[in-house]
Formats: sequence, structure tokens, C-alpha cells
Amino acid sequence: MKTLLIIGIGAGHPEHITVQAARALARVDVFFLMDKGEHKGKLNALRREILERHATPGSYRLVEVLQPQRPLGSDYRASVDTLNAHKQAVFERLLDDEVADGECAGVLVWGDPSLYDSTLRIVEAIAADGGRALRYEVFPGVTSIQALTAAHRITLNSIAGAVQITTGRRLAAGMPDGVDTVVVMLDAHDGFKALIGQDLDIYWGAYVGTADEVLLSGRLDDLAEVIAQARQDARRRHGWIMDSYLLRRRT
Amino acid sequence: MKTLLIIGIGAGHPEHITVQAARALARVDVFFLMDKGEHKGKLNALRREILERHATPGSYRLVEVLQPQRPLGSDYRASVDTLNAHKQAVFERLLDDEVADGECAGVLVWGDPSLYDSTLRIVEAIAADGGRALRYEVFPGVTSIQALTAAHRITLNSIAGAVQITTGRRLAAGMPDGVDTVVVMLDAHDGFKALIGQDLDIYWGAYVGTADEVLLSGRLDDLAEVIAQARQDARRRHGWIMDSYLLRRRT
Repeated sequence: MKTLLIIGIGAGHPEHITVQAARALARVDVFFLMDKGEHKGKLNALRREILERHATPGSYRLVEVLQPQRPLGSDYRASVDTLNAHKQAVFERLLDDEVADGECAGVLVWGDPSLYDSTLRIVEAIAADGGRALRYEVFPGVTSIQALTAAHRITLNSIAGAVQITTGRRLAAGMPDGVDTVVVMLDAHDGFKALIGQDLDIYWGAYVGTADEVLLSGRLDDLAEVIAQARQDARRRHGWIMDSYLLRRRT
Repeated sequence: MKTLLIIGIGAGHPEHITVQAARALARVDVFFLMDKGEHKGKLNALRREILERHATPGSYRLVEVLQPQRPLGSDYRASVDTLNAHKQAVFERLLDDEVADGECAGVLVWGDPSLYDSTLRIVEAIAADGGRALRYEVFPGVTSIQALTAAHRITLNSIAGAVQITTGRRLAAGMPDGVDTVVVMLDAHDGFKALIGQDLDIYWGAYVGTADEVLLSGRLDDLAEVIAQARQDARRRHGWIMDSYLLRRRT
């Protein structure tokens, strides 16, 4: 039997990890560090800082793997399926070659493992396949949504209101019916611009909780261009961006 | 100048508190423990356990306050406004009478301070009033949503899908358009029953992360009555319930 711990480590601040997750790190014999090439430098440093603080010194191995990239193509869903099949093959190889029977492997997930992350889906597919004696546990983490609202000191919902969590891609369809708050993650293309003129406030944050944190908030109509520029500048300076934002109808 | 720390402590498991929040507890001179009468026993014990583990022994005071209750009435929004005005008056009295100049007060919030909690809104109103020299900081926490998905080892979103967070009250209007996942909090009346026959899966959890945790998952049509009964039993046994659930369209 092999064990795999899927551990949420928070959204950027090294102390946003929970006490439970920190203790889980200490159980791990081998960490799989899955990297997107573009994020490598800073995020890797942050992850190593978390390991140095909480994992048991000298008692764990690190296996770094460059994450497969999503193949380019017009069908988003099909390309994600292909990507996840590649990721699953990588995971299976790691479990077979890098983890001895009785050992405990760990995967660190930014934010929380439930939110816009494929690890859980991949591990579930491996476990369901039944070919490996594998058990796995999930440790929740603070998401970039909580990090964003805490940094802005705002609530996520309005009183008794509903909240939608969505992607930049979906935001093009407009502000959803029945909610006055939308949180947008994974927006590569300034999707908020599609909602100018709809009397919204925006609360935007990049690298929240890190030394590079940038926060901007106010009327969307006033800030859309400012934020688009700030995103472009940040991407140029850091080589990548980790940001999200909240849109709320003004009352 | 007085300081107030609004600290998310996670949704029930004493180790779901973040390292950052645990360190914040150590800065506090006086904790305000706001209680709903019904929750008092177990939740208070859990909060005291968290304080005993992380606050500085012998260096803090506790002030317990019975929270004002929402006045009964048909206009939900108006009754919430009245309740929050009462809560604000309580908070102002606590800040004036129980915190010396230069001291640091702390409020522990279940889950995360951004989600279905009034503390941030009240403190913002007090700070905006300008009559007190007050600064405040917010510490994010794991919400009951992350605790629920981790306990069930499921993702929150489907691939590239949107998620709505809503209340039992709002669920009566049906499954929202454009999302395949809904998380329901604050449901006093088995609102999921309104969605029977719509080909949904339900993932339900009560007292998640505590020794009393109960988890149920499967087809909503098969489980609606079972969960309604489980909620009723749990309420009878514990005197109160802390639960939430996720509904997802079956694919």
C-alpha cells in the first residue's frame, strides 16, 4: 500500500497553510513538485520555504517534474482532457518509480485542492482504475478567494446574497442572473472589460499575500484600464501573474 | 489607538486554523466571544481548545457576550439590518469598555470572515463612523466549503465550470442557470428537496472536521429523505446543527 497526501498550502502567503496541513507535510517521504515552466522561479521558492518550515528536515525527498502543457487547439474541453491524460501518466510513473511500498507521497497544491486544480480528479482516476494499492487524503487550504477578500477586508457575499465563482472565459457571457457578486479566476484576457458600464465595483489582487502583492479597488468603469495595464506590467516584470478579482453590483 | 483582529479559525477542525491566524491569536489581549445561545456548548469548547493551543497562556482576557438574535418578522432583509444594528451597539460597547488604549482585541470567526458572517460589515461601519481610533486586520480561514469538499475528496468546480454559493432560502428558485455546481449554506428547511427529479448528485456534511462529523453523498433523488432525517436526528441529538452541501448536475 502507498499513501498520497494532497495538501492545500494556501494562495501565496507562506503562513496561510493550516496547522493540519503543516503536520501532514511532516508525514511525507517524497514530495512531487509539479511545475509549470513559466511559474517556476518564485513559486518554487515559496514552496521550498513552506517545506523548510514544516516538513521534517532530512527525512524527505523531492522529485521535480515539469508539468505537461495544455495542447493548443480550439476545443478547450478536449485539450483539457488530453492534458489531464498526460498528467495522469506522469503521476502513475511517479507513484510506480519514486514511492516504495509503505511510503507516503505528497503533492502541494496552491490554494485549496478543490478549486480549479486537476490533482484530485487525476488521483481519483488512478485510484478508481484499481491497478495500484493506493490510498489518498485531502487537506483543505485557504483559497485565493479568501486571500483576496481578507487583503481587501471585504465580505465575499452581500447580506443573504449569492456568489458565483467563475472563469474569465465564462465572464464574456455577462454578469450572471441572480447574483450580485462574481469572483473570477483564471482570466488571461481582462474579461472584466466586457462588464464596463454595468455599475459594478471591482476588487482586484495579484500575488496576494506575497511581497509582490498589488491591490486595486473601486468602480470598474474607472479602473478597467488601470487594472489591464497593471496586469500587463506585472506580467512583464515577473514573467507570470497569479491574480483574481471580485465584481459586485453597486447598491 | 485600539486594534481589532478579525480571525478566521476554520470550520470545525481545531487544526484547520492557519499558521498566520494562530500567530495572530498570540497578539490578542482580549477576546470577544460572541455566542448564539443554541450553539454554546460544543462550539465554545472548540474555541477554547483553539485558544488554549495558540493564544499566549495567562496573557489574555475573555469577554463572553450572548449575541443578539434576529427579530422574527416576514421581511428577512429588514430583520437582518435590525440585528446588525444591535450587534454593532454590542461591539461598540465592548471596544469602549473592555479594550484599553493601545490594546489589541480579537474576534474568532468560524470558517472565513468573508463568508456569511456579519463581523466585517459591523466593524467597517464602526471604523467608517470615525468616532473611535480603531484599526483592524482580517485573517483568512478555511471555509466550511473547503472542509466539505476535502472530507468528500471532491473538487468544487467541474472542469472549467462555474460554481454558485447560495443559501437555502434562494435555492427554492431552482438550480441557477449557467452553473453545474451549487454550494448551499444556511439552509434551515431542507431546501434541496425542491430540486428532486433534476438529476443531481448531493454531497452533504454536518459538523465536518469534528468528532461528530457525518457525511452522506449520492443521487439527490435517493438521498433527499435520508439527509432530511439525518438533519432532524442531528438537531435533536446536539441541540443545533452546522452543515452544508454541494449539488452537482450528473454528467
